[in-house]
Amino acid sequence: MSNQQIILVRRPKGYPRAEHFALSEGTMPTCKNGEVLIKNLFVSADPAMRGWVSDEKNYLKPVGINSVMRSIAVGEVIESQHPDYSEGELVTGWFGWQQYAAVTPDQIFRKVTECGGSNLIPVSASLGVLGLNGITAYLALNQIGQPKAGETILISTAAGAVGSIAGQLAKQAGCRVLGITGSDEKVAQCLSDFGYDAAINYKQDGNLERSITELCNGNSIDIFFDQTSGSISDAVWPHMNLNGRIIQCGTSAIDSWSPKPQAPRRERDFITKRLLQQGFVVFDHMEKWPAVAEVLAALIRQKQLQYKEHKYQGLNKAPTALENLYLGNNTGKSVIQINHFNN
Amino acid sequence: MSNQQIILVRRPKGYPRAEHFALSEGTMPTCKNGEVLIKNLFVSADPAMRGWVSDEKNYLKPVGINSVMRSIAVGEVIESQHPDYSEGELVTGWFGWQQYAAVTPDQIFRKVTECGGSNLIPVSASLGVLGLNGITAYLALNQIGQPKAGETILISTAAGAVGSIAGQLAKQAGCRVLGITGSDEKVAQCLSDFGYDAAINYKQDGNLERSITELCNGNSIDIFFDQTSGSISDAVWPHMNLNGRIIQCGTSAIDSWSPKPQAPRRERDFITKRLLQQGFVVFDHMEKWPAVAEVLAALIRQKQLQYKEHKYQGLNKAPTALENLYLGNNTGKSVIQINHFNN
Repeated sequence: MSNQQIILVRRPKGYPRAEHFALSEGTMPTCKNGEVLIKNLFVSADPAMRGWVSDEKNYLKPVGINSVMRSIAVGEVIESQHPDYSEGELVTGWFGWQQYAAVTPDQIFRKVTECGGSNLIPVSASLGVLGLNGITAYLALNQIGQPKAGETILISTAAGAVGSIAGQLAKQAGCRVLGITGSDEKVAQCLSDFGYDAAINYKQDGNLERSITELCNGNSIDIFFDQTSGSISDAVWPHMNLNGRIIQCGTSAIDSWSPKPQAPRRERDFITKRLLQQGFVVFDHMEKWPAVAEVLAALIRQKQLQYKEHKYQGLNKAPTALENLYLGNNTGKSVIQINHFNN
Repeated sequence: MSNQQIILVRRPKGYPRAEHFALSEGTMPTCKNGEVLIKNLFVSADPAMRGWVSDEKNYLKPVGINSVMRSIAVGEVIESQHPDYSEGELVTGWFGWQQYAAVTPDQIFRKVTECGGSNLIPVSASLGVLGLNGITAYLALNQIGQPKAGETILISTAAGAVGSIAGQLAKQAGCRVLGITGSDEKVAQCLSDFGYDAAINYKQDGNLERSITELCNGNSIDIFFDQTSGSISDAVWPHMNLNGRIIQCGTSAIDSWSPKPQAPRRERDFITKRLLQQGFVVFDHMEKWPAVAEVLAALIRQKQLQYKEHKYQGLNKAPTALENLYLGNNTGKSVIQINHFNN
């Protein structure tokens, strides 16, 4: 029995495209003592993958050439040689772009108990709103942003898998929520689905400074949920309020960090406005994932949290799904379905 | 009876020099109901004054042209029309570069009870180690830096009025303490008087990157107490450790912020190293001044805290004292004596 896998064949300059990956026929892994054999149901395509396939310094080791592409996945336990896991359970973790994975418990993030079967929430949600993206939005917003009623928050990539959740959570905390996004369609989504008070398409007008000034409409920004860096960040910074917080959660606008790009110097802003800026990586907080997933699942069931998924069918679509992310061709969290639950 | 005052006559480009000020003969103020009349004993010269005389946006309003120069001072109450203050008490606050000031209580920071008279600590210490500088060092270090035993801290302007106190406090917290300073004499002071483990004169070698790498000697930096910004900051940043904290306490290396200078873009560093950077202004924390002054005074009496003062005699020396700060011609906190206590 074979195990289809997607491997990284070349390191991209700039963002990863389909051509940097290839389909490979691996052998079906055996489940050794202490391991769990997983049949992947959905694998993921995430903006962070650009960093994972780069050999620049990052928070995880680069994916090796000719290695299976690193991915969070959700799958079904089909054989267990570990006492904590049983056949038929749903689990999410580092299972890679492949059909099957034999893993040790340290590669498993958590058991997924709120999705699939008789639950109202689909299995794929465990990768997005109840996984990497929703948990990032929740923890980064609350730990660093610490939103208070009446404050103004600005979120870049506002309609994305993280931004759309952060926006709704900030709104529930009583904030005025402003969004920056990359198309008129996404602006409409922000306003109709994700509870933003105002949003702009940063491409609509050549003058980013003016667009953001209009977006702020006289409000200074207490929390900046920055997922882009680059010229969007530079245009937002002058609008920061006294005691503002900058959540650094992504840098999607920067293609390469070597050589290091230049930016306006910010030390004086830190002092005059007593700003706080902090970087966030959700993998530092694995112990909090189950509890946060439970909070977010409850909000979904109460219809207080909207999320969108962009679903692809078949493992061979994973590289295209990833490329589409950087082209802005996705709406919502990109997931790639490989198998169906309990089949 | 006259009241000698130093007024700001022109706004400097770059740092303030003696020529931007003039001696003026004011009239002796009268003490109205609710006011306190103070005879200044010492006034201060501080690096922050560059910001106060600039009309660029800052945390305080710019000093007006032909107005008395803003300064923290320590003085004796010689008449009180307010129930909380009595003749003969020592107080510190915003009393300006002048002999006498009639002030309301909101201009008074605190009563000085640990200095002068039969105390072992001189009155002037209330402006430096027990005032602006020592309290800045203590609060910025502990609130933002949160030093832990075994960590490495790097302090720029290491022998200065703030840096020298921060260095000693960090050493007492169990840190490895590294200093950057501007002369060989100050390096020697750091090592002999202020408890630094290592220090460099950043002017000694044209290659700041190499000097700082040697200073770190294989240790990454957990806390960067940044008082300079500019090329020193840029050379320190690559040495930051995972979960590092950057205390932004000054920007003495930058002469002008308009137009805004450029710097290496740092958003990626924030994420990969989970850095936290925060600006600090000690005037946000006036309610903590009395308690911190008490802690620091106890350390001085126990001979666990060294401080240096650069003492000038006569109000007319204040502008020169200030100019000397920016030329690096001071050793320790610059204070200008105007009167003696109880005379």
